[in-house]
Amino acid sequence: MNRLEWASLDEARRRDALTRPVQVVAQRTRDQVAALLADVRERGDAALREITARFDGVELASFEVTEAEFAAAEAAVGDELKTAMREAAARIEAFHKAGMAKPYSVETAPGVVCERMIRPIARVGLYVPAGSAPLPSTALMLGVPARLAGCREVVLCTPPRKDGSADPAVLVAARLTGATRVFKLGGAQAVAALAFGSDSVPKVDKIFGPGNSYVTEAKQQVAQAGAAAIDMPAGPSEVLVIADAGANVAFVAADLLSQAEHGPDSQVLLLSDDAALLDAVETEIETQLAALPRADIARQALAASRLVRVQDLEQAFAISNAYAPEHLILALREPRAWLGQVEAAGSVFLGDYTPEALGDYCSGTNHVLPTSGAARAYSGVSVASFQNFVSVQSASREGIAAIGGCAYTLARAESLDAHANAVALRMEAA
Amino acid sequence: MNRLEWASLDEARRRDALTRPVQVVAQRTRDQVAALLADVRERGDAALREITARFDGVELASFEVTEAEFAAAEAAVGDELKTAMREAAARIEAFHKAGMAKPYSVETAPGVVCERMIRPIARVGLYVPAGSAPLPSTALMLGVPARLAGCREVVLCTPPRKDGSADPAVLVAARLTGATRVFKLGGAQAVAALAFGSDSVPKVDKIFGPGNSYVTEAKQQVAQAGAAAIDMPAGPSEVLVIADAGANVAFVAADLLSQAEHGPDSQVLLLSDDAALLDAVETEIETQLAALPRADIARQALAASRLVRVQDLEQAFAISNAYAPEHLILALREPRAWLGQVEAAGSVFLGDYTPEALGDYCSGTNHVLPTSGAARAYSGVSVASFQNFVSVQSASREGIAAIGGCAYTLARAESLDAHANAVALRMEAA
Repeated sequence: MNRLEWASLDEARRRDALTRPVQVVAQRTRDQVAALLADVRERGDAALREITARFDGVELASFEVTEAEFAAAEAAVGDELKTAMREAAARIEAFHKAGMAKPYSVETAPGVVCERMIRPIARVGLYVPAGSAPLPSTALMLGVPARLAGCREVVLCTPPRKDGSADPAVLVAARLTGATRVFKLGGAQAVAALAFGSDSVPKVDKIFGPGNSYVTEAKQQVAQAGAAAIDMPAGPSEVLVIADAGANVAFVAADLLSQAEHGPDSQVLLLSDDAALLDAVETEIETQLAALPRADIARQALAASRLVRVQDLEQAFAISNAYAPEHLILALREPRAWLGQVEAAGSVFLGDYTPEALGDYCSGTNHVLPTSGAARAYSGVSVASFQNFVSVQSASREGIAAIGGCAYTLARAESLDAHANAVALRMEAA
Repeated sequence: MNRLEWASLDEARRRDALTRPVQVVAQRTRDQVAALLADVRERGDAALREITARFDGVELASFEVTEAEFAAAEAAVGDELKTAMREAAARIEAFHKAGMAKPYSVETAPGVVCERMIRPIARVGLYVPAGSAPLPSTALMLGVPARLAGCREVVLCTPPRKDGSADPAVLVAARLTGATRVFKLGGAQAVAALAFGSDSVPKVDKIFGPGNSYVTEAKQQVAQAGAAAIDMPAGPSEVLVIADAGANVAFVAADLLSQAEHGPDSQVLLLSDDAALLDAVETEIETQLAALPRADIARQALAASRLVRVQDLEQAFAISNAYAPEHLILALREPRAWLGQVEAAGSVFLGDYTPEALGDYCSGTNHVLPTSGAARAYSGVSVASFQNFVSVQSASREGIAAIGGCAYTLARAESLDAHANAVALRMEAA
């Protein structure tokens, strides 16, 4: 782990300290993904079958999960996990529902009413990864807001296992949220199927969810081509912890490790104004690592991580705002008092008893969050991510009389005479 | 203009009828834009100066609009236009302010509080075109919500004229909305400056606004590269009108023309269940065209437009929802009764006295809207476009006791043991 003293760093080194592990998508990856997308677009199911055989090692006659498969999944998943998923879904629903936007209406001038209508995006695609480990929690994080929005068609894709089945917990989670159709498709080929549609997979308007670099690249390419919108650009997961002298060393170390175990390219930053705390956390991380099954992955991530001593907590928040972390943990004695300093972050965790894992699973907030500094201008998934906001206006004769002159003047100033004429005709008739 | 009978079209012809004029961005354009972006990124102001000399035909020592230039603009713009801009800004503010999201908080379990904080995006860039005509209205549509959001730095770019000045009306509009800095930069080079920053232009987090195909391509490329977020993908403007037998022929023709005059690639669709209305509108368009200064542009757009007879209005709404128009005009006797049928559109105009020009300028709704069918999954610009939504959670000892078990079970199911450990440590201590 890299120890840094912020005060002793010059501008270039500070920039360097906040630079994420390089996210270069090789031209080869881009080309591979482009070729795969073109193949699925052209040959549909035949291409999907071949690609799935090649990458997932299984020949599937049909991609769609059947009722019998859902029933088998229900039987395979234990009650404890089912209960946990139901509880998590209920809290995710409670938090997301309370934040839903409402339609509204304003009379902006006598006889002129402007409104905002809210419509669900008709067809959405949810991608639930199952690489090193299947992620039923992601099915909940995407499926619950999709249901709250009222999307007509919710199509979930998750990779098949070598025996041709899908992960049972993911299927149970999909059913729990009311996903309308589920397909055993993974990787860039799943994104291609959702963006273009095929004989068996319906085309969708927007694609959500995390994935590996192929999935991410495929999402970017279909969005760029206008084939489907996407939730947000995605990169490796990351956490920034701001800890004071009073922070619990074991908790902080455990939080850093729970981020580091996500993948070798995860990034972990700890900022503290107390050198002794940094020393203690460094030692504690080694101790906890010894007991972790995914220690190898975590070690790789920790190699790129940084423990930074700052002069004071104000400096820590300035650094955090410049970095714009996906997850921000405030291991502080008065975390709420500092909340006003947070300008950009995906999700914030307050105090010693709020590990990031709560937000990952079941506090109620969403875990599909902006990474790689995208939190400067993107927000995590919410119900609004599944909705369209449509503005509506209606002018009566009185209304056009009230504001027609204003529109006419502006249209003429912009040399748009047909615009001016469309207004003038009404003003004469009103 | 193309007349079509919907009932007589087969599937392929129906698809064809709803296909927008081809939006192929030539590989040459892509490469040119990529080279320009790389040049600005590397050489900064020197590159901006050269490119501006080449494309705008003016050598600028400095890009930033000075106080003296603002003062000259104030003096150059007449009172009528100033009043119209102030009135428009006031109504845009009234409508946008009423729709602003609020922070909220939910106790999702005993001792677990989840919240949503709202933060302005710190640095935003607004692009205001001034090609065939400068668009002060766009400065209002972007500047007002940026101010309502509270963005710290609002950087507006608009192309210089041949004499080195910027359009006075655009400058007055920029000042009216409180843009913090204004630069005389146009085209892809403006987007490059905003995305990467230079010695004189500050880098921003998100770029807004319409533009020609170079601007659009530049926005796509900087978003793809992660240099800055963008408001939405953009294409040529378009309108779909649904008119019944009682619609006012002159009004409908005027609305179609006011869309057609935007540019040769604008698209115009009229759907009606009444053949006589379609006939009459076709004739009326020719009459009105004769008086239009931009008739040549409008004629080109009309060549790709369609007048479609539908069997009934239900069919018209089904077609409209499939097309997802940027602007949707309901020239119907009971427009509000039909509003429930609208699934996807950028902005809707109700009845005979609500020409699209009202929304373009001053009803209060935004005119930066999704085009090219993007309305299926994107919304127009609102205050939320300038904000980040940050989730916050806080668990007390009671809270971790209440939901820790749920998180632990899910973490174990996903084989993320460090996550489980971070929870277990707190549960033991709580």
